[in-house]
Amino acid sequence: MSDPYERMKASGIELPPCPRPTGSYAPGKTFGSLVFASGQTPTRDGVPAYRGRVGTDLGVEEGYAAARPAALNCVAELEAVCGDLRRVDGILKVNGYVAASEGFEEQPAIIDGASDLLREIFPGVHARAAIGVQSLPGGAPVEVDLIASLKT
Amino acid sequence: MSDPYERMKASGIELPPCPRPTGSYAPGKTFGSLVFASGQTPTRDGVPAYRGRVGTDLGVEEGYAAARPAALNCVAELEAVCGDLRRVDGILKVNGYVAASEGFEEQPAIIDGASDLLREIFPGVHARAAIGVQSLPGGAPVEVDLIASLKT
Amino acid sequence: MSDPYERMKASGIELPPCPRPTGSYAPGKTFGSLVFASGQTPTRDGVPAYRGRVGTDLGVEEGYAAARPAALNCVAELEAVCGDLRRVDGILKVNGYVAASEGFEEQPAIIDGASDLLREIFPGVHARAAIGVQSLPGGAPVEVDLIASLKT
Repeated sequence: MSDPYERMKASGIELPPCPRPTGSYAPGKTFGSLVFASGQTPTRDGVPAYRGRVGTDLGVEEGYAAARPAALNCVAELEAVCGDLRRVDGILKVNGYVAASEGFEEQPAIIDGASDLLREIFPGVHARAAIGVQSLPGGAPVEVDLIASLKT
Repeated sequence: MSDPYERMKASGIELPPCPRPTGSYAPGKTFGSLVFASGQTPTRDGVPAYRGRVGTDLGVEEGYAAARPAALNCVAELEAVCGDLRRVDGILKVNGYVAASEGFEEQPAIIDGASDLLREIFPGVHARAAIGVQSLPGGAPVEVDLIASLKT
Repeated sequence: MSDPYERMKASGIELPPCPRPTGSYAPGKTFGSLVFASGQTPTRDGVPAYRGRVGTDLGVEEGYAAARPAALNCVAELEAVCGDLRRVDGILKVNGYVAASEGFEEQPAIIDGASDLLREIFPGVHARAAIGVQSLPGGAPVEVDLIASLKT
């Protein structure tokens, strides 16, 4: 069970194609054995799967659910950049941005949707920051970016 | 005076225990001689020491004061991850997130509370970004994360 | 055409002096062949060139225009830290923060102003995240920070 593709299959996770960048940037960039994956929202085939603001339009469970496909899109970026997810050694740092209402305080519970998905595919822990922001591309409730390491 | 523990003692800084992560992540993660420390708010023993929004509920002085224990919690993360703060070579990058009112413009003056604390413990300068955000975990006014380097 | 100074000249881009940090941090920090450049807003000679919130006070075109000098200030930081922009191998990751209205969804179109400027000077692609935030230092509509790599 050391293969991310086998783990995705066992968990019923289907890796989407890497989303086309929405601007003048790349899905990710490698530097030695570091990979920077660009920010992703919960889109599927380029269409928002979730919209709105957590704490107003979406509850905690929906926010958690929305963070999952955002992180999965980051995994698709990793594959696009590295060619093969078996080259990934682990996830180092996750930044999770939650489009949140003014009084919302449970950003970590939302970004756990991203962290849990990533840990199903790449066992091990990562550092993280979870932030409540004003608004996100395409009206998304969550955006996730990450830094991963490659096997050497 | 090259020892961070001696510098903390001289400055009357008491290092708290590393806060228990509030979700599915780790206090920090090393990659070679890089350390990524997870986002921290000004909690003490898991309880928020400050709450509210800078520019509305807290003034600049209180915001500065709140950034200090947030950064100190990051130092506790560094110790938890590295085992010994004497292994830390320096702080490379600090991200400071201020839960701010719409018209607030003094994010740098708030995050100076984090930077000044870090520089007392680890002499030298670091790169930084200071951002005004909508809301933060647990209703915190400030969140700080950082990247540090280890001695090789 | 492999020299960033020649490319700036050909594009009519004049590199400003490195902005003085607005607090207790440095313009940037190197670690091996990584450079972390601090967050920059569209200031010129220390004075905001743009103010306000995208989606309310500024439209998409103005936001794009504002992101350009913010990124150019980051290039000035790279020069200050590295001594010579010819040492820069490329841009790895850009974080773009847009002070945005609640319903604003076009953060990527704004941060393209930063990415396009960076790609004129340093050919090649970079990873990126674009986020809509509450407020930024000095009332700026955009803040940009980045990680670059040096030639080895």
